[in-house]
Amino acid sequence: MSTLVFGHKNPDTDSVVAAIALADLKKSLGEDIAPAIQGDLNPESKFVLDKFSLAAPEVITSYAGKDVYLVDHSDLAQSPDDLKDANVLGIVDHHKLGDVTTGQPLECWIWPVGCTCTVITAMYDYFNVEIPKGVAGAMLCAILSDTVIFKSATCTDKDKEVCAKLAEICGESDLETLGIEMFKVKSAVDGTPVRELVLRDYKDFDMSGSGVGCGQLELVDLSIVDGIKADLEKDIRDLKAEKGHHTVLLMLTDIMKEGTELLVASDDESVVEKAFGEKPEAGKCWLPGIMSRKKQIIPDLEKVFG
Amino acid sequence: MSTLVFGHKNPDTDSVVAAIALADLKKSLGEDIAPAIQGDLNPESKFVLDKFSLAAPEVITSYAGKDVYLVDHSDLAQSPDDLKDANVLGIVDHHKLGDVTTGQPLECWIWPVGCTCTVITAMYDYFNVEIPKGVAGAMLCAILSDTVIFKSATCTDKDKEVCAKLAEICGESDLETLGIEMFKVKSAVDGTPVRELVLRDYKDFDMSGSGVGCGQLELVDLSIVDGIKADLEKDIRDLKAEKGHHTVLLMLTDIMKEGTELLVASDDESVVEKAFGEKPEAGKCWLPGIMSRKKQIIPDLEKVFG
Repeated sequence: MSTLVFGHKNPDTDSVVAAIALADLKKSLGEDIAPAIQGDLNPESKFVLDKFSLAAPEVITSYAGKDVYLVDHSDLAQSPDDLKDANVLGIVDHHKLGDVTTGQPLECWIWPVGCTCTVITAMYDYFNVEIPKGVAGAMLCAILSDTVIFKSATCTDKDKEVCAKLAEICGESDLETLGIEMFKVKSAVDGTPVRELVLRDYKDFDMSGSGVGCGQLELVDLSIVDGIKADLEKDIRDLKAEKGHHTVLLMLTDIMKEGTELLVASDDESVVEKAFGEKPEAGKCWLPGIMSRKKQIIPDLEKVFG
Repeated sequence: MSTLVFGHKNPDTDSVVAAIALADLKKSLGEDIAPAIQGDLNPESKFVLDKFSLAAPEVITSYAGKDVYLVDHSDLAQSPDDLKDANVLGIVDHHKLGDVTTGQPLECWIWPVGCTCTVITAMYDYFNVEIPKGVAGAMLCAILSDTVIFKSATCTDKDKEVCAKLAEICGESDLETLGIEMFKVKSAVDGTPVRELVLRDYKDFDMSGSGVGCGQLELVDLSIVDGIKADLEKDIRDLKAEKGHHTVLLMLTDIMKEGTELLVASDDESVVEKAFGEKPEAGKCWLPGIMSRKKQIIPDLEKVFG
């Protein structure tokens, strides 16, 4: 029975590609191992695997009795529901340390960098294993995606250093163009129901007793959503009512202009001005330089509620 | 304010030396950092630091508001009581993954090897930093201690490989002799109260409702305790009564003969025979090949009670 390696629920490109890459590396080191995913590929990941002719990992949701490696997460909420019945051999990640624990010693490579694939590239290096061209290209895309083409506050020098190496291996010379090509796929909204767009990358927070929801769409150009913006504004008002929340936000992030148009549905719009110094007009405002929900939106909002 | 790096409560040689070594490595990489310990040095650690002319880390028990690295543990019970008020930058360890969590991304190097210092030696290598002679000698001793001179079931090829490198740096050519010299210090019982010896490395377990205690003394020769064995036997009977336990065991482990004389105080001595296939005579029995409480005593005993 082979070992399985998988990323978090609702897999993004880093979770998918990191599973493929770690399986490749461990196979080279003599382990019987295969990549898996906990759910279907999103359009961006599909584009990346197609571009570099890599097979999609099998969708597997139950891991009881299996030897497993986790990538791109270390918390139980993001893991399979039966993880407690699996045997965790190791974790490769770039997030805060979550609540997964183990009954025996394991192998963890967890670094404070922009992407799991940055850590895995360093592991290939450490174990002196050659990176296959297709895996290198896909890892490059995963890093460009997680770091928003090096523009995210989470991007480190190590991410950039590793990308230069991967670009050489896979023969991609223009990373900006590759990144934009990928984000155009991610930006596509045609034919997608409005509610699905609002929830595509959405999280709920409890801020000192007040419910706050915040979604984000990363777009290569805000004009992509011009035709549906009024529908998006109506939908977050509906979502706020359904959830009984104090506030629901939708970040329309322009990755080229490096800023976010914030759509606001709130019992008290002044929380937005208090948090970010911009007063919403007709339920929206432009926040220059703001691209990260985790680092630039939630902490400041929590202070206002706290 | 400098960052602090420390090992677990009741520090052993690996916890002390790993803190010194990681501080040295991180200082070479430009961090303002100092080693610390959560409690006083044991005789073995004192011997190792003296032998390689290293200063003892400061004893510090409160870390609120500090940036910290943990070595040799990742569970809250072994950490300072106010760890939740510290900012954990990273963990270097070789145990199972414990219940420490963090609020932000961190750096973890956790490998399934015999000793934290094995991982730190690999980190020096990865970051291409030279290991000072004294630090190399102390790390060599920590690995020899944790792996019982390569005889423990927890010892891996990586531990042996790393020791060869460290031996070259510090100029120690005879690892067996160095290890025995160190274990002689650890074995010393002269002038130590019997109860202190029983509790020197002692743990309580709840086995399906029955209280079981188990201490261990690692000795270079069982004859060291000939003069006090009757006192040890009486003391574990007393301890059993005081704790209201079903069983209290004391492992007298002969690291040269690679076996353990087990002293037994129990409501039902047959549990020992059921677990290990040896019937105690007059409250003791010899278990050849048994050296690890964690791997070779507790699991088999738990099955008998379970």
